Amino acid sequence: MEVRFEEKDFLACCGSARFAHEMASAGPFRSLTDAVSAARDIWFNMVDVNGWLEAFAAHPQIGESASSTHGKSQTSAQWSKGEQSTALATATGSILQELSEWNVQYRQKFGFIFLICASGRTSSEILAELKKRYQNRPIVEFQIAAEEQMKVTELRLAKLFSEKDRVASAGDQ
Amino acid sequence: MEVRFEEKDFLACCGSARFAHEMASAGPFRSLTDAVSAARDIWFNMVDVNGWLEAFAAHPQIGESASSTHGKSQTSAQWSKGEQSTALATATGSILQELSEWNVQYRQKFGFIFLICASGRTSSEILAELKKRYQNRPIVEFQIAAEEQMKVTELRLAKLFSEKDRVASAGDQ
Repeated sequence: MEVRFEEKDFLACCGSARFAHEMASAGPFRSLTDAVSAARDIWFNMVDVNGWLEAFAAHPQIGESASSTHGKSQTSAQWSKGEQSTALATATGSILQELSEWNVQYRQKFGFIFLICASGRTSSEILAELKKRYQNRPIVEFQIAAEEQMKVTELRLAKLFSEKDRVASAGDQ
Repeated sequence: MEVRFEEKDFLACCGSARFAHEMASAGPFRSLTDAVSAARDIWFNMVDVNGWLEAFAAHPQIGESASSTHGKSQTSAQWSKGEQSTALATATGSILQELSEWNVQYRQKFGFIFLICASGRTSSEILAELKKRYQNRPIVEFQIAAEEQMKVTELRLAKLFSEKDRVASAGDQ
């Protein structure tokens, strides 16, 4: 069975308009594996550096609540909250405060927010990673952020497919 | 003797405001070698990816006349014309036409203009290089453009220093 999604579905996976457009054109996909393979090709070979920055800007800051993501995709905001659930459950006030301060410093140095595939990571692991990555050269960090974005995108594509499966199974009954 | 320059001098060498600001803070420099060394460190380790894009945007398109660089540094525009003198002297109408068409394609793919240290290169060499580089992944091309920008910056820093020397020698007489 082929699964068809719309541009807005892909935009919730990765906030680059070019990415969403190319994914919608490349589909429908026979499987999640095919979709992930197309997504990797589009993200790394076709989306330009402005598109990478656009996608990064669509995320809330790590530790920031989804409600403050003005004008961003609702689906993306909800998923983001889910991905950060381990971090939020393990966060103390002082770690959240420190994360917030380091996020400001990071953004000043690199010109975009700190991006990490937060799924399953505790807040102190995330803070340690932020401090380590802060040492990088801007162009190196830019590429690491793009790799992290791809990990987030893959997780979200998997969610899209599993939701579609659930809807399809419910329809069969 | 130490040579002191202002931010606007450095901005004519490289159109990133952060670069110009950091160079003015790092100076005065005892020699061109010291200035180039500081420039490399600032450009590759401190200027972020937005600053790289800002610097790229300060250049006229290859083959474009300096008069159409609205609002850009006059010094930069004049230097750019000088750097392209070999290319312009060797250009036929059809090569200029082809360069112009490839420039459009390049910009569509990468989101910034094709940047090359044109000094001493003929127009057909530049066109061949454009076609070759067009095949690159966006992030690879972004880094090549930053290397080319640094070559242009070094040539322009040398011009700044030699002009200062000339003024200083004239003052001694």
